[in-house]
Amino acid sequence: MLSYVLHEIGGQILPEQREIPQVSQDGALVKVAYAALNHRDCWIQKGQYAGLKFPIVLGSDLSGWLGDEEVLVNPGYYWGTDETVQSSQFQILGLPQDGALSEYVVVPKSQVHTLPSHLSLQQAAALPLAGLTAYRALVQRGGTRSGEKVLITGIGGGVALFAFQFALALGCQVVVSSSSQEKRQKALDMGASYAYDYTNDQWTKELMKDLGGVDVIIDGAGGESFSQLIKIAKPAGRIVIYGGTQGEIQKMSPQQIFWKQLSVLGSTMGSEQDFEQMLAFVEKHKIVPVIDSVYPISEVNTAMDRMRESKQFGKLILRIEQ
Amino acid sequence: MLSYVLHEIGGQILPEQREIPQVSQDGALVKVAYAALNHRDCWIQKGQYAGLKFPIVLGSDLSGWLGDEEVLVNPGYYWGTDETVQSSQFQILGLPQDGALSEYVVVPKSQVHTLPSHLSLQQAAALPLAGLTAYRALVQRGGTRSGEKVLITGIGGGVALFAFQFALALGCQVVVSSSSQEKRQKALDMGASYAYDYTNDQWTKELMKDLGGVDVIIDGAGGESFSQLIKIAKPAGRIVIYGGTQGEIQKMSPQQIFWKQLSVLGSTMGSEQDFEQMLAFVEKHKIVPVIDSVYPISEVNTAMDRMRESKQFGKLILRIEQ
Repeated sequence: MLSYVLHEIGGQILPEQREIPQVSQDGALVKVAYAALNHRDCWIQKGQYAGLKFPIVLGSDLSGWLGDEEVLVNPGYYWGTDETVQSSQFQILGLPQDGALSEYVVVPKSQVHTLPSHLSLQQAAALPLAGLTAYRALVQRGGTRSGEKVLITGIGGGVALFAFQFALALGCQVVVSSSSQEKRQKALDMGASYAYDYTNDQWTKELMKDLGGVDVIIDGAGGESFSQLIKIAKPAGRIVIYGGTQGEIQKMSPQQIFWKQLSVLGSTMGSEQDFEQMLAFVEKHKIVPVIDSVYPISEVNTAMDRMRESKQFGKLILRIEQ
Repeated sequence: MLSYVLHEIGGQILPEQREIPQVSQDGALVKVAYAALNHRDCWIQKGQYAGLKFPIVLGSDLSGWLGDEEVLVNPGYYWGTDETVQSSQFQILGLPQDGALSEYVVVPKSQVHTLPSHLSLQQAAALPLAGLTAYRALVQRGGTRSGEKVLITGIGGGVALFAFQFALALGCQVVVSSSSQEKRQKALDMGASYAYDYTNDQWTKELMKDLGGVDVIIDGAGGESFSQLIKIAKPAGRIVIYGGTQGEIQKMSPQQIFWKQLSVLGSTMGSEQDFEQMLAFVEKHKIVPVIDSVYPISEVNTAMDRMRESKQFGKLILRIEQ
């Protein structure tokens, strides 16, 4: 089979002929139809991820066939029995275990799920990692309810877009932020009430005028601007952190946090229960993942460039050549 | 009646003869036996509090008599119906309404509660504001359970000490931090497993060696050292912020927050339900407030000096002369 392999930090992802892997008793051999990229793949390539090993087949997201059945795979392995946090055995498909950028992949049987019935294989490949992360952040950790006002920062990435779609489906008023006029317009077209340019230093004042604050914020940035999120959170507000692309959080006011009874909640990936609930939610609300573009697997390095530069609006999909 | 009145920012608290206030239909005239000080009183005196007005009779904590009955008063007024956060009408006894440093005080009838049966009037005066704040922070917001490891930072203040006593009563392993050797020793004598000097830059390493991290942290400081609390929190840990004496929080790692699924939770005061549950908890576990010292009300300015310098270990009580 053809696998696409990263051999070193900073290296290109290169095709390589490999043996189809052996399947143990509780494993399943999935023939991959589509894979999708995540920022995680870029961080591993840059060497900015714990537990690096080489060579590695990247890729946490895939759809494909188990025998005749169309399936997708929960990329979070060995979460454990505690719903509040993953166990120390927790792993994500695509490091340390070889991932989706391959004709075949072996995964534990329990990680394999049937596709939501309204999705194609191409659409379904976009869902697993980002959909799971967004669902846990918004619903399980954020406790978001119908009628609440929700801000999704940095719209365009996979998690942000799923959180956006899920919040709309929940019946929330949803607003977004982005530095890109194009991405703001796309979000407005999809149902955002307002879209703010966070490079404009008046944006939080505008939001306060428009909405009087927000109940829930889903943030993957952190950094210096995080302190502004504390200010625009309404009393009893929840700010869920699923990423930290802008680095350490600075100048955060404890007074605002305690007086408004705010909750700043970390969230990453999700449990098996979260994954099943996410699939049921996607099925119920007929949510279709936003796809930025589809590349043949042979152009994986071009797709990685686009991801690294955060140019995408939606998921980057790779078609595995059969 | 004799009231002790603050007339201006930075002023002394001065005795003054006043009329006993009129009681409306839903009010209760309580004859004050003991009052207790809180940092809030110092901040108001320094002018560092919202909604200042003068002259004002300070004091949020009191015990006394309603007719023949021994009572104490819930100092949090008009919380409202939402358990998650106080309403915009919320007030604390002692600003804007005249407070406890007086022979008599009129309060809404619904704020008056019977003393826990094992407490004297002197002990009960120590309980309301700090006990309520500690209970909500530890139990309602922190969700602290028996067997968990709990760190109380800055042991010595009223809220920290109640949180400490409540956590021990819950069946937690409790550790504390303080820059004062004397306060650390007192906490060890009261049942702390370990007491750390946070001015020693190895203290978090020591804690990790001793405990492997903590499940719950109750913090009233914030500031630069808050980022260390994120590091010593165990997976699924909760850090409850009830104060911010050290100012803005800096250098907080979003990666640690999301990967460990941490919750940073603001908490202030508590609802009527919290107050009732706190009284029942204190009664059940026969908790006796720690009293630092008892002054006659005529020495209120000396007591305020001690509070401002954070020299106390436990509550500062004022005996109202009858």
